[in-house]
Amino acid sequence: MKEGTVNRRVIVSERPRYAIPTANVFSVTESPVPKIGDRQVLIRTTWLGLDPYLYGRVKRVSSQSSPVQLGQVMVGPTVGRVVASHHPAFAEGDLVQGFWGWQDYFLSDGSRIMKIDPEIPRPSYVLGAFGISGFGAYIAINEYLRVQPGEVLTFGAALGGLGQMIGQIGKMRGAHTIGGAGGPEKCKFAVEELGFDVCLDRRAEDFHDRCLEEFGRAGVDCYAMAAGGRVFRAALPNFNLNARIAVCGLMAFYGMVTLPSGPDMTMAVFNEINLKRLSINGLVTMDWMGTPLHDQFKKDMKEWILGGKIRPVEHVVDGLENAPDGLQGLFEGRNFGKAVVRVAD
Amino acid sequence: MKEGTVNRRVIVSERPRYAIPTANVFSVTESPVPKIGDRQVLIRTTWLGLDPYLYGRVKRVSSQSSPVQLGQVMVGPTVGRVVASHHPAFAEGDLVQGFWGWQDYFLSDGSRIMKIDPEIPRPSYVLGAFGISGFGAYIAINEYLRVQPGEVLTFGAALGGLGQMIGQIGKMRGAHTIGGAGGPEKCKFAVEELGFDVCLDRRAEDFHDRCLEEFGRAGVDCYAMAAGGRVFRAALPNFNLNARIAVCGLMAFYGMVTLPSGPDMTMAVFNEINLKRLSINGLVTMDWMGTPLHDQFKKDMKEWILGGKIRPVEHVVDGLENAPDGLQGLFEGRNFGKAVVRVAD
Repeated sequence: MKEGTVNRRVIVSERPRYAIPTANVFSVTESPVPKIGDRQVLIRTTWLGLDPYLYGRVKRVSSQSSPVQLGQVMVGPTVGRVVASHHPAFAEGDLVQGFWGWQDYFLSDGSRIMKIDPEIPRPSYVLGAFGISGFGAYIAINEYLRVQPGEVLTFGAALGGLGQMIGQIGKMRGAHTIGGAGGPEKCKFAVEELGFDVCLDRRAEDFHDRCLEEFGRAGVDCYAMAAGGRVFRAALPNFNLNARIAVCGLMAFYGMVTLPSGPDMTMAVFNEINLKRLSINGLVTMDWMGTPLHDQFKKDMKEWILGGKIRPVEHVVDGLENAPDGLQGLFEGRNFGKAVVRVAD
Repeated sequence: MKEGTVNRRVIVSERPRYAIPTANVFSVTESPVPKIGDRQVLIRTTWLGLDPYLYGRVKRVSSQSSPVQLGQVMVGPTVGRVVASHHPAFAEGDLVQGFWGWQDYFLSDGSRIMKIDPEIPRPSYVLGAFGISGFGAYIAINEYLRVQPGEVLTFGAALGGLGQMIGQIGKMRGAHTIGGAGGPEKCKFAVEELGFDVCLDRRAEDFHDRCLEEFGRAGVDCYAMAAGGRVFRAALPNFNLNARIAVCGLMAFYGMVTLPSGPDMTMAVFNEINLKRLSINGLVTMDWMGTPLHDQFKKDMKEWILGGKIRPVEHVVDGLENAPDGLQGLFEGRNFGKAVVRVAD
């Protein structure tokens, strides 16, 4: 790393040929650090946030937003430090957040960056707890799941950015929290460190028996879907009357090359929706940015984190050059917590 | 028919061996007309209502309600005339409705029968327009679809009990109504007589081209599911952002012996729910009986029918002995309107 003279940028060099992002998709280029002009801000990237939806932006046809063009810098949420400023609103040393993507340096006109609240204990938290993971969980619970004390709240990817927040906020609300995760270490952590009532290991041999036992006890009242994989399929026949499902993401679907083989369960699922009077809502966190709920969320989350009620768990990947592998790791379930990349201190 | 001395009863004699109800399931028995006792009412059945959900009650395991025991009278909504009364609340000649099932005569203690509003122009309307078909449509539109003027409202089985009401209430609300039905006669009737904007013939060779054309124009904002068959599958990729789906029934599913072959589209559907921010709600009309909404519905529906704004379309099957074939006809799409059985005048 030649700090100060070279700007490394991770570009999208090839469209994906595989269901999960692999090394061939990205390449690192080097260019001079851009020269700062009038009313501009030069930012040194310190953190990147890795989210499953980013992989969608790499594909030729992106369903959520326009795809990143070949040869362009990979997009993504970012945190950085102002190293030079010719802009009245920003000063050297300010910590800022934005969406300038996978590069060491970024020259901003000040329009799409925001200073980070200095009371937030770790700047990288704006990428997870205060970012779309935390806010997504907050929207799901408040607007769609309306979790009541004593209700059973279920979710997969219990240590992922979204799942860890769903479980912790749900627990505060008095829910009986049943998470799912891949592997015994994650499940142990989810129960012992995050206080979830149960964590089902979707890789364990007795996964189905454990699901029958846990879901059979009192059914499922609320489901926050982040992955839509085995935990959801196990929960599906166990929904209680008037249960609610918030569809936040489908990690398990994004990585599919072909649709799963049959039979086609769609109509059986709609029959469950009918008979159980289920309420299912899709949500995209971006829609809620800048709403009064967003302000309330930031206030609440800060209070919870400073008060020790919410504990964000981060999985730190070191080095900009390892961002592609970090993204791939999300799809392989290698992350132990919300995945972030440390680019510089 | 030996009116006055013999009570014919259609009993469930065998569990279904086929996906749709067939003749072997039912048989007709004869017994004497019951003798009226103190505080009892003797009713002559005049009309039966046929609804798809009734077939569920015949199966060994019924998901909605307890199954009818073998040898017992087939259940179902009924209309009748009081032929003798020893009950202070009912007089000879009163028209009443209830759920006493498929038999010529019924002896009631007055507890689960109700006098029919004399302003309703045809008593059989209480089985359709004023029954679960009409009320189901009313709940779907008011509580879940919240149809706005100019929005595209889609539904299958356009002439069925539910579909004909969805389309007509939706039309009053200013929606662009796209129904689906089996065969050109039904489609012609739906457009020319009921005023739906479009009716797609799911049996026509150009069905898919017509769907592409109609759904492609402005997408789909609201879907009322009664069948969940071809029309729904064609609408699915065409939902607009924030579209709503009310899952009222799954006629196309009830008649299945095996699930459709793959691939399993479930997760692809949930991905649509997520990206399109869909809102999907299951509803069972029975849940809403006796609520303030039910009172409002009865008031509104009477006003609409007396004012000529809603035109109920009935498919009349003649004779109690033909009720089994009438029920089978529902699953074969033979009914041209809400199916009712005329048992006596």
